[in-house]
Amino acid sequence: MERVYNFAAGPAAMPLSVLEKAKAEFTCYGSTGMSVMEMSHRSKMYLEIYQQTERLVRQVMDISDDYAVLFLPGGATMQFAAIPMNLLAENGSADYVDSGNFAHGALEEAKKYGNVRVIASSRDDKYTYIPEVTPDMIDPSACYVHITTNNTIFGTRYTSLPDTGNVPLVADASSNILSEPYDVNRFGVIYAGAQKNIGPAGMAIVIVRRDLMGKARPSTPKILDWAKQADADSMVNTPPTYTIYLAGLCMQWLLDQGGVSEMEKINIHKASLLYDVLDSSKLYRATAQKAFRSRMNVTFVTRDPDMDALFVKEAAAQGLVNLKGHRLVGGIRASIYNAMPVEGVEKLAEFMKAFEVQHV
Amino acid sequence: MERVYNFAAGPAAMPLSVLEKAKAEFTCYGSTGMSVMEMSHRSKMYLEIYQQTERLVRQVMDISDDYAVLFLPGGATMQFAAIPMNLLAENGSADYVDSGNFAHGALEEAKKYGNVRVIASSRDDKYTYIPEVTPDMIDPSACYVHITTNNTIFGTRYTSLPDTGNVPLVADASSNILSEPYDVNRFGVIYAGAQKNIGPAGMAIVIVRRDLMGKARPSTPKILDWAKQADADSMVNTPPTYTIYLAGLCMQWLLDQGGVSEMEKINIHKASLLYDVLDSSKLYRATAQKAFRSRMNVTFVTRDPDMDALFVKEAAAQGLVNLKGHRLVGGIRASIYNAMPVEGVEKLAEFMKAFEVQHV
Repeated sequence: MERVYNFAAGPAAMPLSVLEKAKAEFTCYGSTGMSVMEMSHRSKMYLEIYQQTERLVRQVMDISDDYAVLFLPGGATMQFAAIPMNLLAENGSADYVDSGNFAHGALEEAKKYGNVRVIASSRDDKYTYIPEVTPDMIDPSACYVHITTNNTIFGTRYTSLPDTGNVPLVADASSNILSEPYDVNRFGVIYAGAQKNIGPAGMAIVIVRRDLMGKARPSTPKILDWAKQADADSMVNTPPTYTIYLAGLCMQWLLDQGGVSEMEKINIHKASLLYDVLDSSKLYRATAQKAFRSRMNVTFVTRDPDMDALFVKEAAAQGLVNLKGHRLVGGIRASIYNAMPVEGVEKLAEFMKAFEVQHV
Repeated sequence: MERVYNFAAGPAAMPLSVLEKAKAEFTCYGSTGMSVMEMSHRSKMYLEIYQQTERLVRQVMDISDDYAVLFLPGGATMQFAAIPMNLLAENGSADYVDSGNFAHGALEEAKKYGNVRVIASSRDDKYTYIPEVTPDMIDPSACYVHITTNNTIFGTRYTSLPDTGNVPLVADASSNILSEPYDVNRFGVIYAGAQKNIGPAGMAIVIVRRDLMGKARPSTPKILDWAKQADADSMVNTPPTYTIYLAGLCMQWLLDQGGVSEMEKINIHKASLLYDVLDSSKLYRATAQKAFRSRMNVTFVTRDPDMDALFVKEAAAQGLVNLKGHRLVGGIRASIYNAMPVEGVEKLAEFMKAFEVQHV
């Protein structure tokens, strides 16, 4: 069976060379005589893998020692609770921007733990844009401001970060981390579920400014206490060891491609291949506002849901799979994370043009 | 490189045939054109894998529909917090048995959420036995009684379950689940981290009697809310998809071996190979009391720590690795989970005898 081009939103395509390397050493890693997934997390051989992954994450994102890099089980949604548990004082308040489905999920979860202010929202406009945040909108005594840098479902993206002054900026970057350079020093916390640009599902990377740690409320589960995890090298308990290993291989692959800056150029090119088709089309309509278009998740519709379904079906027959839009939006979504090769996007663009010729 | 016999306590050895099957379909699963780890968790092809894993877990453990089977991120330690969050009423109380390091960790975590009574403990005796629990020791109004069925670090095991009457019995079975038959109907909740007898690290299986769900306290993170996870087929967010797939392969392997009853016979045989050497030795001393010996974790010492270290080193040179005891106990520990072949245990027993001849 030939491999397909997989446009899934996450879990998503991984670099084939990473999969092939992992496959080659799947039952026997180096001279250890065992699979990485059989190694004790406390063993010297595994600790080398762990430390290598952390080193590579620090290198690709240029993370200073002022920040801890944590590998935690459970994805971004687990951190939706961990963030207020670690940062929101019992009688404090946090500012949230409601720019999409997961942004909304983050703030709903935070409400369990204290006072949440929604300072800007595009919810009533079906999240087709990123709402503006100006400094005067931010409560200077807020414990933090939370944003979601890229909107996986609705296909929007922050083109610039809000100025939050002295209030720590906390960002869920699950669906565009490592796709463009971010100055980590702008953030109090930047975190991401692994299953888009980092590796397989079941883990989040959480990058926390060290001075923000150590104030978790007493009822925080110890696995979610960032200070405890930082002290224990993310090993308060057995971490998702194999996922961490694969994340390291993905980081090395990213470096081999030229790093995040080079990847950004490729991503801009890939996204433009699709948006150019959409903008010159009589059949397709991009659903996100032009100024806020995501480079990772390209969302569009044809003239009706039946035609959308036909598009998804015919594309799949050509090896271009998982193009169905999220159930909240409908239509079509092409998720084109770092691991999606330019060739796959070119094939999709060609297919879109051919499909239009056939159906207009 | 030849594969070694890996006696690690977890993450631990996995069945070679499982690893080989996973390796064969690592980059391309069936006719899907992609790796299992690249599949959307909402896709039809992945849902088949998920449902197959759940079906197999239910089959091997004979779990009725009165129980939900959840696949949750984070291992048993995450559940140490989830248990009181889901079961301990705000002004209620829970009874815990302190029979080992993880049993102690579970009760310490639970104290964050309410009143915990330690009803029996072997802590002052270095956890060399399982303390007796009689019905009169149990608070009939307790929300639950928590035990740890096998003690990974100290090498002890419950030989019979305590009678808790109408109080739900909650059991951490991380290190002996699937190694011997358990009547699930005896438990309110039985849970286990995956990295010993289930699959790779980063996940727990949580089996919950359905009538106990739906009472989670409002501050429970939604990922830890069992009722929400049961309603969502463990997909409140993206689950550890690849780990679930591998767990399914391990369940199928277990069935192919004859199921849990057959596995128990093999495990009794494997453990006796080592305990027989210990009991007839002038060099070795088993550290756990005879009546409570674990079949999964065989702990022993030689006459001094230097000799222990020499044993571990010389064994490793013969491909018998990860035999060093836990730092809390010292000495030597052979973890012989389901995936450890009889041949590996026979080689270890032979080595033990030869080492003794050389050093007595």
